[in-house]
Amino acid sequence: MTSDTDRLTELRDRLRGFVRERDWEQFHSPKNLAMAMIVEAAELVEHFQWSTEQESRELTDEQRIKVEQEIADTFVYLLRLSDVLGIDLIDAAHRKMDLNAKKYPADKARGRNDKYTAYE
Amino acid sequence: MTSDTDRLTELRDRLRGFVRERDWEQFHSPKNLAMAMIVEAAELVEHFQWSTEQESRELTDEQRIKVEQEIADTFVYLLRLSDVLGIDLIDAAHRKMDLNAKKYPADKARGRNDKYTAYE
Amino acid sequence: MTSDTDRLTELRDRLRGFVRERDWEQFHSPKNLAMAMIVEAAELVEHFQWSTEQESRELTDEQRIKVEQEIADTFVYLLRLSDVLGIDLIDAAHRKMDLNAKKYPADKARGRNDKYTAYE
Amino acid sequence: MTSDTDRLTELRDRLRGFVRERDWEQFHSPKNLAMAMIVEAAELVEHFQWSTEQESRELTDEQRIKVEQEIADTFVYLLRLSDVLGIDLIDAAHRKMDLNAKKYPADKARGRNDKYTAYE
Repeated sequence: MTSDTDRLTELRDRLRGFVRERDWEQFHSPKNLAMAMIVEAAELVEHFQWSTEQESRELTDEQRIKVEQEIADTFVYLLRLSDVLGIDLIDAAHRKMDLNAKKYPADKARGRNDKYTAYE
Repeated sequence: MTSDTDRLTELRDRLRGFVRERDWEQFHSPKNLAMAMIVEAAELVEHFQWSTEQESRELTDEQRIKVEQEIADTFVYLLRLSDVLGIDLIDAAHRKMDLNAKKYPADKARGRNDKYTAYE
Repeated sequence: MTSDTDRLTELRDRLRGFVRERDWEQFHSPKNLAMAMIVEAAELVEHFQWSTEQESRELTDEQRIKVEQEIADTFVYLLRLSDVLGIDLIDAAHRKMDLNAKKYPADKARGRNDKYTAYE
Repeated sequence: MTSDTDRLTELRDRLRGFVRERDWEQFHSPKNLAMAMIVEAAELVEHFQWSTEQESRELTDEQRIKVEQEIADTFVYLLRLSDVLGIDLIDAAHRKMDLNAKKYPADKARGRNDKYTAYE
């Protein structure tokens, strides 16, 4: 691994190849990819819908495997969407974290979920 | 950058610090993080809901900035959820891609969105 | 049918009985019901994710049956959530339509999806 | 009110007029309406994402007003989607409840959220 081909870039390229081999670029408009992504996100939510918060922190091995797969599916579509739009996920996240740091000053937001919610 | 501290790991650690400084671990159950993540995913979907597919491929600069922020928000919660569950996003994605490669053989799935849908 | 027991009220009461017989009130917090509802909403979205808009207007009989079931699931959770919160769905919808009518004056919003989006 | 013009039918007709006056039928493909609907569903989820289940059962008056509006928005799009597809929401819900009654026999499903989840 070099600085130019980190793990995320490798995954992005694997995805590109996967889609190209199947001639699926035609279906991968940002509109469609956003839909596919939220569908996978919902399959993740489904695992937790009747659980208590505590239960969601203590997954069985079987649950963990399924949850991991839904996380992976969501991530794959999010990464693919970013690639189609020419957006670097990590850079975008850092820029947003810079904004969040200003929006939620640590001393004011500490331990408050109302604050958290109110500002979003 | 070394192989042990790639860009994704750096971002994960920044997130950890951000949450810890605000004493927000208490709110970050997998159940709640999955909810927060799908809410951000929906804000992304919202940008495309009345667009044609073609329009979604041709964002204005203003639209791109907003879309990038929603992608970042979704990614941040997905990465945080993975971290709380001790899941490596990249490894999970590769494992899922291995499964997808078997599920959608290139020669059968080529150019078919029905296949695509039918198998999911 | 009388004015006091219209079709929606009958359905609400059927749902109440269904939940009570299974002792599921304990799981039906608004938080959980909102999660269950968005999961069903996503199963509806899934039917359309790779379709063109035109294809989504022309469902086969088989597709229609499945779509109808996902619509029903979403509606059932939405009605149940409303009931738990003591909200009348129809009254709430009319109140919101009153607001929407002011927000999107017909003469200004006509034929514009940007307007539509911009105001939401 | 007569049996032919119940409250739900009245609301459906109001929606039809609202959309027609704004010349928005062109945007109301099932694909787009499903997207709009899940976006509103997510705004509902957002109200509960950091709440405990107990807190979600005890809304303040201010929270209730907002939650009611999000429920209304979701319902309006769901009703509109049904109308575009020629589906009667109440009939569809009763048919789905018939299936659910068989899928979750009261004596076996009683008080079990695992059962509940496992069968969906």
